[in-house]
Amino acid sequence: MDNELKPMDAEQLREHAHKMVDFIADYYKTIEDFPVLSQVQPGYLRNLLPESAPLNPESLQSVLDDVQKKIFPGVTHWQSPSYFAYYPSNSSIAGFLGEMLSAAFNVIGFSWITSPAATELEMIVLDWLAKLLQLPDDFLSSGKGGGVIQGTASEAVLVVLLAARDRALRRFGKDSLKKLVVYASDQTHSALQKACQIGGIHPENCRLLKADFSTNYALSPDVLSEELSHDTASGLIPFFLCATVGTTSSTAVDPLPELGNIAKRYEMWFHIDAAYAGSACICPEYRQYINGVEEANSFNMNLHKWFLTNFDCSTLWVKDRHALIQSLSTNPEFLKNKASQTEMVVDYKDWQIPLGRRFRSLKVWMVLRLYGIENLQKYIRNHIKLAEHFEALVCEDPRFEIVTPRIFALVCFRLLPHKNEDGGNKLNQSLLDAVNASGNMFISHTVLSGKYILRFAVGAPLTEENHINAAWKLLQAEASALLAN
Amino acid sequence: MDNELKPMDAEQLREHAHKMVDFIADYYKTIEDFPVLSQVQPGYLRNLLPESAPLNPESLQSVLDDVQKKIFPGVTHWQSPSYFAYYPSNSSIAGFLGEMLSAAFNVIGFSWITSPAATELEMIVLDWLAKLLQLPDDFLSSGKGGGVIQGTASEAVLVVLLAARDRALRRFGKDSLKKLVVYASDQTHSALQKACQIGGIHPENCRLLKADFSTNYALSPDVLSEELSHDTASGLIPFFLCATVGTTSSTAVDPLPELGNIAKRYEMWFHIDAAYAGSACICPEYRQYINGVEEANSFNMNLHKWFLTNFDCSTLWVKDRHALIQSLSTNPEFLKNKASQTEMVVDYKDWQIPLGRRFRSLKVWMVLRLYGIENLQKYIRNHIKLAEHFEALVCEDPRFEIVTPRIFALVCFRLLPHKNEDGGNKLNQSLLDAVNASGNMFISHTVLSGKYILRFAVGAPLTEENHINAAWKLLQAEASALLAN
Repeated sequence: MDNELKPMDAEQLREHAHKMVDFIADYYKTIEDFPVLSQVQPGYLRNLLPESAPLNPESLQSVLDDVQKKIFPGVTHWQSPSYFAYYPSNSSIAGFLGEMLSAAFNVIGFSWITSPAATELEMIVLDWLAKLLQLPDDFLSSGKGGGVIQGTASEAVLVVLLAARDRALRRFGKDSLKKLVVYASDQTHSALQKACQIGGIHPENCRLLKADFSTNYALSPDVLSEELSHDTASGLIPFFLCATVGTTSSTAVDPLPELGNIAKRYEMWFHIDAAYAGSACICPEYRQYINGVEEANSFNMNLHKWFLTNFDCSTLWVKDRHALIQSLSTNPEFLKNKASQTEMVVDYKDWQIPLGRRFRSLKVWMVLRLYGIENLQKYIRNHIKLAEHFEALVCEDPRFEIVTPRIFALVCFRLLPHKNEDGGNKLNQSLLDAVNASGNMFISHTVLSGKYILRFAVGAPLTEENHINAAWKLLQAEASALLAN
Repeated sequence: MDNELKPMDAEQLREHAHKMVDFIADYYKTIEDFPVLSQVQPGYLRNLLPESAPLNPESLQSVLDDVQKKIFPGVTHWQSPSYFAYYPSNSSIAGFLGEMLSAAFNVIGFSWITSPAATELEMIVLDWLAKLLQLPDDFLSSGKGGGVIQGTASEAVLVVLLAARDRALRRFGKDSLKKLVVYASDQTHSALQKACQIGGIHPENCRLLKADFSTNYALSPDVLSEELSHDTASGLIPFFLCATVGTTSSTAVDPLPELGNIAKRYEMWFHIDAAYAGSACICPEYRQYINGVEEANSFNMNLHKWFLTNFDCSTLWVKDRHALIQSLSTNPEFLKNKASQTEMVVDYKDWQIPLGRRFRSLKVWMVLRLYGIENLQKYIRNHIKLAEHFEALVCEDPRFEIVTPRIFALVCFRLLPHKNEDGGNKLNQSLLDAVNASGNMFISHTVLSGKYILRFAVGAPLTEENHINAAWKLLQAEASALLAN
């Protein structure tokens, strides 16, 4: 960059951004050359960079050289076709183009007036998605409900928990906070517990009910009912029930119709977290897993996991948008404007924690248009097919077992205990460490009923059958080496 | 796009992203041709788009055509050189390139292991910025404190409020929540009040103390002390004081040294919100405005406002990172890993509301390196000079007045009351509506001591003196037209 600062000169932007495009395309071209899980040691970067920011400008080339030499080694390549850890984080060309356009406009769409298209496109694409998922009409923006893009599922569950809390406080009095009780299974994402901490729910009133092998780690309606009877008899107030479709550990699916009935009986807010598995429900054959959504007050699904939309993009629908707005609105003078005052528009600032927000609907719109529904369904089905293929490979090797029935594209498996040290937990941890240290693949783990379990989540956009086969071969080889010791 | 879905094919990415770069560069080339404030009516987009998502893929060209025809009219152009509303939202080439790279990696950096470079680069650039701002060493990552990138200043104030709340609850017992009191001036950003609502602070315990013309809308230490004596005498517990450097309405600067002393005496958490004006403090001649930061527990500045870093990027420093972590950490099995367990690393998931997080430090690093400190200082000074120029123009026209002394790059002014209808409020509102409806500029307003005031915030990257002059001519012409009626 020359010394005169032209921070947004169109021609310099063109030149440098073209250079960046080639850099990024080359990265994707060679992505399989990198260790999937970064192999650096803690603190590696500190000594590679100067102590303070430079006084004078440096060239783009020198920065790109540093990205290659100093940053790349510290990146865990979530887009690698051999990434099978946690849940996927999908990037796509359409999602990437949407991110570019959103960064270019760089609007802060807190109120409708600050960019009407940002608010209106969000309402429209969330309606499109609601129809695609066959959500009840109550979740559409034409009625009393509507959809909104949150950053993450953590924020989604937090905002609805706050709406439910404040609804309960209005009903039972503001001193009833310590009587409010939240219900979910112990397989629910830790985001729920964090939301309770933030919202001031008493830690002992967060009921994470035990789910075990007998229900395939889903919440049992009987266990829930029993707990509710006990709590209400003690004068406590049940106010929030969170069900999960596709838990983080093992893709367990809570029984929505039964839970919905219970929630209704106790007048609890019923939230469904389908952060991961929601994407599969765009296929008619998987839609059954969200049967019962009719009784829900809110429904959440992350497009940034398995729907080709770059992070972050967590879609939340509510039936009663005013409950959200009552908890989250502020109306300072400096943000007042005619469109908002006359209530002719949606101001999404009142549906979320932050004030500012990015134009995230652009990437959703581009994913839906550039790929189309049929291709998106094929994309999901292909990953599930690949997961089935992996499952079959595991089943063929008697040294291994499948731990929970596979439903979507996650396979939970383990190496069977060898010499009964600790039920095989150390053995499986060693296997995980060994395959991850190879740099050739990355998987993660969980613990179910005391068993250490390996999670193999198919879902990266570049993954093909050969990557599954290679991963399995590596797992077998490392298992053989471990068992030989 | 062809029918076979290749969502991350490197060559298709290259081709389509080059096309998008040209589209965006052309946008910046012609940005002055658009109305700055979108002139569409509520609901304009609904009829322009189909009822549901397409079954089959559409071409990139058709989407870009729609962006031009259907989206552009609904965009309020925050990057226009004639954008003077609210506070700026800076985009820059460096910031944009950083966004591209971050979207390309698409890593979810919740824990160190998920991309060590994402965590470590963030620690390093936040240390760089802390040194640039001459923050006390306690805020550096080498001690017990450190910096973290939040999405917005709203999230920054929320997380420190929660840390302070939980520290107080540990000290005074968990039933003391309703006794906890927050202090700030009534000029403090509405984000504080929202944070109190979220954190369950009783609404009547949120003291927004009146600041008026006598202190140039800064919080008076005497008023604060009086309130504190009264509250402690009533058995309440002061626990949080928020000071602002550069308020949203008029860039008021609270007296940090005096407030810091009071906070210390009452053992309150002392937070400084320098979301807007922090950027100016990288210039030695403006550093004085954060004198007193030594006594703060936390300090916040938004790089996405006036520091050439695309939204979102709000930097927060704390002296005691463990206070944050105690409030915000969760440790589910599925996220456990050796590096975290041995406490050798920072896991930023425990410093923020969401779990997932983008690789935002890349854009900060690129802004600092591609521009350098001296250019960034020149950039800030140039905007302040342009604001001084505008202020001088206003002063020359006896029909107008400057309402509060200008400190940074915001000018608060108004047309003097004509026939004393309502002290000129309606007149100034009409003037605002008239200039904004022209499409040639966009300004916003506030109300101070009952007076409706026009805010002219200089700070868009493309703004030059001719844009200031043109805006002023338009304001004068519309004023003449209004006064003639």
